[in-house]
Amino acid sequence: MQSGTDSIATIPTGAVTSQSGDGHVEPATGEVLDPAMRASLHRWWRAANYLSVGQIYLLDNPLLREPLAVEHIKPRLLGHWGTTPGLNLLYGHLNRIIGERDQDVLFICGPGHGGPAMVACTWLEGTYTDIYPSIGRDGAGMAALFRQFSFPGGIPSHAAPETPGSIHEGGELGYALSHAYGAALDNPELVVACVIGDGEAETGPLATSWHANKFLDPVGDGAVLPILHLNGWKIANPTLLARIPESELRSLLEGYGYEPIIVAETDPEAVHEPLAAALDAAFDRIAAIWDDARNGAATIRTRPRWPMLVLRTPKGWTGPSVVDDHVVEGTWRSHQVPLSGVRDNPDHLAQLETWLRSYDPDDLFDDDGRPTPETLALAPTGTKRMGATPYANGGLLTVELDRPPVSDHAIAIDAPGAVDAEATRVLGEYLRELVVRNADARNFRVVGPDETESNRLGALYDVTGKQWQAEVEEHDEHLVAQGRVIEMLSEHTCQGLLEGYLLTGRHGLFSCYEAFIHLVDSMVNQHAKWMKVSSELDWRRSVPSLNYLITSHVWRQDHNGFSHQDPGFLDHLVNKTAAVVRVYLPPDANCLLSVMDHCLTSYDKINAVVAGKQMHPVWLDMSDAEAHCERGVGIWDWASNDDGDPDVVLACAGDVPTLEALAAVDLLRTHLPDLRVRVVNVVDLMRLQPDTEHPNGLSDRDFDTVFTRDKPVVFAFHGYPWLIHRLAYRRTNHANLHVRGYKERGTTTTPFDMVMMNDLDRFHLVMDVIDRVPSLGSRAALVRQHMGDRRAEARAWTRAHGEDQPEVRHWRWPGSGSEGGERDES
Amino acid sequence: MQSGTDSIATIPTGAVTSQSGDGHVEPATGEVLDPAMRASLHRWWRAANYLSVGQIYLLDNPLLREPLAVEHIKPRLLGHWGTTPGLNLLYGHLNRIIGERDQDVLFICGPGHGGPAMVACTWLEGTYTDIYPSIGRDGAGMAALFRQFSFPGGIPSHAAPETPGSIHEGGELGYALSHAYGAALDNPELVVACVIGDGEAETGPLATSWHANKFLDPVGDGAVLPILHLNGWKIANPTLLARIPESELRSLLEGYGYEPIIVAETDPEAVHEPLAAALDAAFDRIAAIWDDARNGAATIRTRPRWPMLVLRTPKGWTGPSVVDDHVVEGTWRSHQVPLSGVRDNPDHLAQLETWLRSYDPDDLFDDDGRPTPETLALAPTGTKRMGATPYANGGLLTVELDRPPVSDHAIAIDAPGAVDAEATRVLGEYLRELVVRNADARNFRVVGPDETESNRLGALYDVTGKQWQAEVEEHDEHLVAQGRVIEMLSEHTCQGLLEGYLLTGRHGLFSCYEAFIHLVDSMVNQHAKWMKVSSELDWRRSVPSLNYLITSHVWRQDHNGFSHQDPGFLDHLVNKTAAVVRVYLPPDANCLLSVMDHCLTSYDKINAVVAGKQMHPVWLDMSDAEAHCERGVGIWDWASNDDGDPDVVLACAGDVPTLEALAAVDLLRTHLPDLRVRVVNVVDLMRLQPDTEHPNGLSDRDFDTVFTRDKPVVFAFHGYPWLIHRLAYRRTNHANLHVRGYKERGTTTTPFDMVMMNDLDRFHLVMDVIDRVPSLGSRAALVRQHMGDRRAEARAWTRAHGEDQPEVRHWRWPGSGSEGGERDES
Repeated sequence: MQSGTDSIATIPTGAVTSQSGDGHVEPATGEVLDPAMRASLHRWWRAANYLSVGQIYLLDNPLLREPLAVEHIKPRLLGHWGTTPGLNLLYGHLNRIIGERDQDVLFICGPGHGGPAMVACTWLEGTYTDIYPSIGRDGAGMAALFRQFSFPGGIPSHAAPETPGSIHEGGELGYALSHAYGAALDNPELVVACVIGDGEAETGPLATSWHANKFLDPVGDGAVLPILHLNGWKIANPTLLARIPESELRSLLEGYGYEPIIVAETDPEAVHEPLAAALDAAFDRIAAIWDDARNGAATIRTRPRWPMLVLRTPKGWTGPSVVDDHVVEGTWRSHQVPLSGVRDNPDHLAQLETWLRSYDPDDLFDDDGRPTPETLALAPTGTKRMGATPYANGGLLTVELDRPPVSDHAIAIDAPGAVDAEATRVLGEYLRELVVRNADARNFRVVGPDETESNRLGALYDVTGKQWQAEVEEHDEHLVAQGRVIEMLSEHTCQGLLEGYLLTGRHGLFSCYEAFIHLVDSMVNQHAKWMKVSSELDWRRSVPSLNYLITSHVWRQDHNGFSHQDPGFLDHLVNKTAAVVRVYLPPDANCLLSVMDHCLTSYDKINAVVAGKQMHPVWLDMSDAEAHCERGVGIWDWASNDDGDPDVVLACAGDVPTLEALAAVDLLRTHLPDLRVRVVNVVDLMRLQPDTEHPNGLSDRDFDTVFTRDKPVVFAFHGYPWLIHRLAYRRTNHANLHVRGYKERGTTTTPFDMVMMNDLDRFHLVMDVIDRVPSLGSRAALVRQHMGDRRAEARAWTRAHGEDQPEVRHWRWPGSGSEGGERDES
Repeated sequence: MQSGTDSIATIPTGAVTSQSGDGHVEPATGEVLDPAMRASLHRWWRAANYLSVGQIYLLDNPLLREPLAVEHIKPRLLGHWGTTPGLNLLYGHLNRIIGERDQDVLFICGPGHGGPAMVACTWLEGTYTDIYPSIGRDGAGMAALFRQFSFPGGIPSHAAPETPGSIHEGGELGYALSHAYGAALDNPELVVACVIGDGEAETGPLATSWHANKFLDPVGDGAVLPILHLNGWKIANPTLLARIPESELRSLLEGYGYEPIIVAETDPEAVHEPLAAALDAAFDRIAAIWDDARNGAATIRTRPRWPMLVLRTPKGWTGPSVVDDHVVEGTWRSHQVPLSGVRDNPDHLAQLETWLRSYDPDDLFDDDGRPTPETLALAPTGTKRMGATPYANGGLLTVELDRPPVSDHAIAIDAPGAVDAEATRVLGEYLRELVVRNADARNFRVVGPDETESNRLGALYDVTGKQWQAEVEEHDEHLVAQGRVIEMLSEHTCQGLLEGYLLTGRHGLFSCYEAFIHLVDSMVNQHAKWMKVSSELDWRRSVPSLNYLITSHVWRQDHNGFSHQDPGFLDHLVNKTAAVVRVYLPPDANCLLSVMDHCLTSYDKINAVVAGKQMHPVWLDMSDAEAHCERGVGIWDWASNDDGDPDVVLACAGDVPTLEALAAVDLLRTHLPDLRVRVVNVVDLMRLQPDTEHPNGLSDRDFDTVFTRDKPVVFAFHGYPWLIHRLAYRRTNHANLHVRGYKERGTTTTPFDMVMMNDLDRFHLVMDVIDRVPSLGSRAALVRQHMGDRRAEARAWTRAHGEDQPEVRHWRWPGSGSEGGERDES
């Protein structure tokens, strides 16, 4: 365990920076670049800028071999120029670094709509053509490159899955830095250069992800170089971080734990020296931190203060300075398309031609439109090219997990419900073994917002710890410099770290409270979209799935109350592409093992697994559990008495609903023994959808076989009841489907009172059955009334005693052979 | 417009702070408190702590008038002690400030599970009993107070709606500071004291909300005093901000723009002096900032550096120091219930009694259990009590909006579709007038993430501006020190500011891109839950609704691509309590005016209004629009030819689907003139639900009248098609309902190509109708084939030209009398 001692360095130690009188760290003025290198950098930048403008504007005449005319211009001018020149500049400068240091660099393009730059640079370096041979690195290819950008059937305006070298889409802003840190974990040779737009920097997820530096291990992990690009404006507003005094900005970034190196320039010719100096300083500093941590003699490690860059340059730099008497370059007016009336306004057309020719395309590209050798002087080769790095196509690097047999961790039972177990604690023991088996591969991580122990996965701490580089005090537990668990009270950062980790080819699990996983709804949207598009691209290799363990779920939040009750993440997820999303509701510990083992072997999916952490009966032994989970839905013969011809189907999905449904069956057997009841349990929720809608969906014939074509179905469901209807509305028997689930009725209560409040309890399920089997007659009416009385008694008991009735708490499935015993309800 | 000049103050100017040698600002050691006041503060703290422990543990024997026994202890020990003593301490000290300065203070309790403290303090000051007379301020009342906490039928463990003086629930963390800033806006006499837990401080929404100080106007707005409470641990982990060097923390907070005053203490007796000194300094500084801004001679205003407190004290302070040989006080072990085995473990029981008696209840409460006059010496009276401040029951302060007649802004039309208009631009003109009419009341705000102009509400800037206190440069537009619009690229902060503003009784609108409003899904959950519970509490007055203008919607994100396409916020919203949520899909500009005018007069709701910003036909004149929106769903006779007996119902909801549905009707009239088509438009989506499920729902009879009991219904819907099924699955005619909507098929495309990709286009709707009216025969088969050809042509056109076919773009409703003209599709 590391020491908590730490010291504040107020200036970077890089050779090219110096402390100026007013507290600013400024790049030195000494020359870093020889003239040839400076010329190469500027040439790269000109070429990339030319290619970017071409993408936004040109349908034809890509090399301007004839005067620019209206017919060469796209009818819809889409795309965003403002952020582009800064990205092109950085890409070129990073090429120099890569070449000089033989350094693997993954480029994260945070700014929204930065696509033109990434496409231009990867086309220049050749990776674009390697991946898309129809887009040649010549004049015809350039024409195709320009045409496809933001064009029907073409490519989007962000660094999307289609973009070589990208693991990050700049559509929804906020996740660049957490993705970068996730990519750097367990990649000790990698530097992730992460460009953060000053718009994105205002988002909450980005604002807290700076703190991810308190987790990064300088020995086992790589490095992240944040580059905060202050171009000053968003769509129509200045950005906050560009409009505070530089000393305040520096204070903020130092407060986040970085050594900022600030480069500010408005002259395009003058930027190369200070930027190169700053990058050299940053990479020197990273190398020094690595060397110190990995080769140093010190036994006590201190948290390094990683370097970062602030690049303050004009928005829409090198673009039109003034348009229609409005200053455009260096203002918000350059955000999108600086010249918007090109097809209707000859002045705009002429100004566009002047702008394009200012980059001197004839000097950049040969007669065939190929970049000249001089233009490509900077470009690295092979997989050192940022567009070709395998880190950005993580499936290339994936090593399958070595999984322990689930049977090693199964709960043995003699009869259904004979034994209780805490499902997540059982899973924790499986995960402990998983960590041990993959310790050398270093390719599995668990993230969560301070809940791994609370969610009873604490067995992990027998073999690993929580990675942590901040200060440590006496009473801390399980904090280590290198560990498989990362906990931060930011679901956004957890999700971003895990996404970055998965997209670079590794495996992981996010353990979280059910109600608060909604915090990452929009991140899940973006990841699902990324996975859908990626799966349609041959060159993108499969990456491990994003696995959620959703626990501390709605039915056990009676004590935390209404604010902690929300099962709607499942509803959110099932709207996403069917090829990507999976939802599992294992009814007991053995089924949780089986389901999670399956999820950890799956690729390209988002798997949501909902399971409680409390003591709960184990219904199926391991082999039955595996068979049941493999089927995803099944009739539980041991709980049914229908002999293939039920009067009613009692279906259930989720651990608590399954318990209540079985308790209802017990009541029905006692009070209405002649009623033929079929018990159906659903583990894989997507089985309810038709197979025409979802790959896991049941055929209508199979659905009808299980749920019947015409018998009443009472369905006890973990989530909002409408979700079942939304999935099953096309089924033959849908009109007979009656669902009980959560309906936002919460207040402070007990576990059983909570299911009663939502009419999901055993007594009410019996009443539901009686109401739907009219042939039952007068005896059933008496039973129904008795159930109402039992409910009233159960509620009164909670109000009097503050806990559930013993007969409710201690209920056991008949024949389970076990003693009724207290269950843990905390 | 203010100047951007600003200066960095590195130390607070309060008299009681000083700069120590190592860069720390520390409270002075001089005496601020006279002995009586110090005693009163300590007595308040002891009393509040006693009452907090009592809530967590005691069922009976509240005053310990007999030895503590097992039967006095709750069976389930719930609640959270760790954060509680710090909150009680601060509440008492703020009472001193209020009394000495006659200052209105709103207390925001950010830390999760801080409920016991808020309940204890408001009971002490008498507001609890004022509101809940059954909980008297005496021994019997204390017993009831203790019993109800986290008890079935009782109150939750957070500062919930049930808690006097609260506008903020600590369930989901992250929003304390944005709520505080929202409450302070336009309340120039108010100081909002906002306690931020160091757990919460790790969340993204909290991390960026510090920057809200760049918007707060020291003239027109009140002040926020952030109090970062570093107690060092979360559930099982240390907190990041407690484990960085203090100089780094100070740098961070100064970088956020504050003057931090740090109070660190571990001795309960010694904390009062430095804390009082720090609070005096902070309130002095606030008063000085106000005075300077409001009464100063300076014409150029500079952004003030507001004070803030850092309170570093032990977690679970004054609780059991060591339990079972584990150190508990000052560690994560005090997070919840420090003594967990009280009913089974006599040592724990004894330790609990010792703990309770350490506060000396006999000295705090009289024989009847009433707090003694000495205990209450600090408590303010009347509405100065923080539990009784009207700011926390905002409906008490609400002034209705003075609204312009919608007819003043209506688009006049001679026939349906005769005129095009940009719906949001028309709304912008209405909002401009609304701002003018309510300028003196200062009770309306528009928030958004940099999109007010992009969403074409720019008319607002004729009469107001964007409030902004950071630096201003030459090319900025509409930035003002006081303005009705606040824009920050953080949907979380926008939402938090607006919630704080609404819950303190004012009105507002959040304008946002549809895809990215998912960022605040979880915040909407919490607000919906707050509103549901509030509406069930008689004493909580109604507050204005939370209104979303959801624009730049899914069907116009063809150019921004897949990442910008997500209509699922509506699905998310409709899972919330029916009494609270409303979803409106106005089909044109006049309907948008009518709907938004209605929303701005509504209370206690969450209204989501989806409307595009592009040029779009106006179908209804203003009086028809008002009648249609009032009904919420209606048959459009002018577009129908069914004479009360349709062959098919063509339903639509949303502006783009309505356009496509009407274009389909035009095609049907041309090609199948004998087919009787009924056109139904849905504005109020909740009309589709049964009236038993939602207050706006149609009765089954009315639904059947509109949609028929047995005719095919083809429904063109704005969002995911399953949402319509989820709302209408119980309806008689559900089996005949066929819905087209968005299905995650996006790529880069044109507007019409995008509707084609999702089979929502006019041609496909015609095909859908033909497929569902089998009696149409062979002519229909030819029409169907023709529609397929038209689609293929339309798609090919986009691929060739990069824009939609002119005949598609220029389509007009027959008889609209207008020329076909180009519509804006950017």
